Amino acid sequence: MKLVIGNRSYSSWSLRGWLAARQSGLAFETQVIPLYGEGWEATKTAIPELAPALGKVPVLWDNDVVVWDSFAILEYLADKVGRDRYWPKADDARGMARAMVAEMHAGFAAMRGELPFNLRMAPTATPLTPAVRADVERILTLWAQARARFAQGGPFLFGTFSAADIVFAPVVVRLRQYGVPVPGFAATYMDAVWEHEWLEAWRAAAEAEPWAIPHFDAAAKT
Amino acid sequence: MKLVIGNRSYSSWSLRGWLAARQSGLAFETQVIPLYGEGWEATKTAIPELAPALGKVPVLWDNDVVVWDSFAILEYLADKVGRDRYWPKADDARGMARAMVAEMHAGFAAMRGELPFNLRMAPTATPLTPAVRADVERILTLWAQARARFAQGGPFLFGTFSAADIVFAPVVVRLRQYGVPVPGFAATYMDAVWEHEWLEAWRAAAEAEPWAIPHFDAAAKT
Repeated sequence: MKLVIGNRSYSSWSLRGWLAARQSGLAFETQVIPLYGEGWEATKTAIPELAPALGKVPVLWDNDVVVWDSFAILEYLADKVGRDRYWPKADDARGMARAMVAEMHAGFAAMRGELPFNLRMAPTATPLTPAVRADVERILTLWAQARARFAQGGPFLFGTFSAADIVFAPVVVRLRQYGVPVPGFAATYMDAVWEHEWLEAWRAAAEAEPWAIPHFDAAAKT
Repeated sequence: MKLVIGNRSYSSWSLRGWLAARQSGLAFETQVIPLYGEGWEATKTAIPELAPALGKVPVLWDNDVVVWDSFAILEYLADKVGRDRYWPKADDARGMARAMVAEMHAGFAAMRGELPFNLRMAPTATPLTPAVRADVERILTLWAQARARFAQGGPFLFGTFSAADIVFAPVVVRLRQYGVPVPGFAATYMDAVWEHEWLEAWRAAAEAEPWAIPHFDAAAKT
C-alpha cells in the first residue's frame, strides 16, 4: 500500500490518514507531496496521477483501489484488518465513539479555520473568537464524557488508542500550539497523544521537511 | 430501538438516519420531534431527554446506547447487522463508496445551505450560484464514476441500494425540488431513488405531518 500525504507540518488530514494507516499494522509506503511552500510548484503536476479523485490528500493506494478522505481511509483499513483495531468493542462505547468521530468529521469549521494546523510554530497563547470557543467547549465535553465513561484507566479517549484519538489528534495539536487553556483531564489526555510514539515520529519527520511557509510560521509566532 | 427524527419535510439528516435504520432490517420505532413550524414550541422541552448528546436529530436509542449523527447511526447499525447490508463487497467498490460518503458527510456546504431540503415545495427551476454549481458538478462526477464502474446493471450507485444511496438521498431530493438540470444517467438514478418504496413512504408521511413553515414553502415556490 501507498499513502500519499501533504506537508506533515501543515496538513491535519494527512496526520489523520497516516495514523489510520499505522493503526492497521500493515506495511505501507508514505509519499509526501508538498502542498505549501516552495515544494508545491515542483510537484503539482503529479497531483492528477497521485490523487486522481479529488486532487487532495491524503490518498491511500491499495493496488488499484484508491481511497481518498482520511476517514474513509480509516474505515477501508478497518474493513481490511478488523473493526476491533479501530473501534471499542462494547456497543455503548462504540456508539459514542462513532458519533463523536462523525461529528468531528463534519463540524468544527470555526476552530479548523481560525486555528490552522501548524507544527512549526512555537506554542503561543491565542485569543479565541466566540465561535472557536464554542467548538472547543463542545470538544472538551465530548472528551470528558468519553474519558469518564469509557477510558477504564487507559490514557486515551476510550482507554487504548482508537479511531477517536486518530480523528481528534489534529485537535490536540491545535489546542496545544495555540495555547488554549483546558482543564486538567484534557491536558493529561493531550500529553498522552502528543507523546505517543507515532506522534513523535510524525513531529520529527515534519521538522525535517525542507518545505516551509516562513511568513505563516512567523505570523503564528507573533 | 427508537429513532428520534425531525420534520420529515425539512430534515435531510433525519431522512438519512431513517433510511439507515430501514436498511438494517431491524424493527424500530420512529418518534418525530417537530423542529420547525408550530410544533416546535410544544416539544422543545423534550429535546434534552430525547437528544441528550447534541440536542440535534436524528438520534438512535438502542436500549441505553445513544447514537447521534446520521452517519454514525448508519455505521452503528452496520456493526450490528453486518457491513454487507450497507457497503459493497468488493474492495474497489467499497473503497470508492466509503470515500464518496465521507466526502459528502464533510462537504458540499454551499449546496446544503442554498438549496434547503424541502419536500413541501413544488419542483421549481432555481438559478445556481457558482459555489452550488461546483458542488453539483462534483456530485455528478462521483455518481457517474460509481455508476459506470460499479452499478453492474442495478439502478443505484453501486447496483443495489447501499450506504451511498442513503447518504446521497437528500441530494436527490434537493436537485429534484430545485429543478437542477442533470444529464440523463443522473435523472434515471434520481428517479430510482425518488421512487424507492422507502422514499415513497417517507414522502407520504411528510405530507401528512401537521407542522409546516408556510412562508418557507411559499418562498420556495415563487
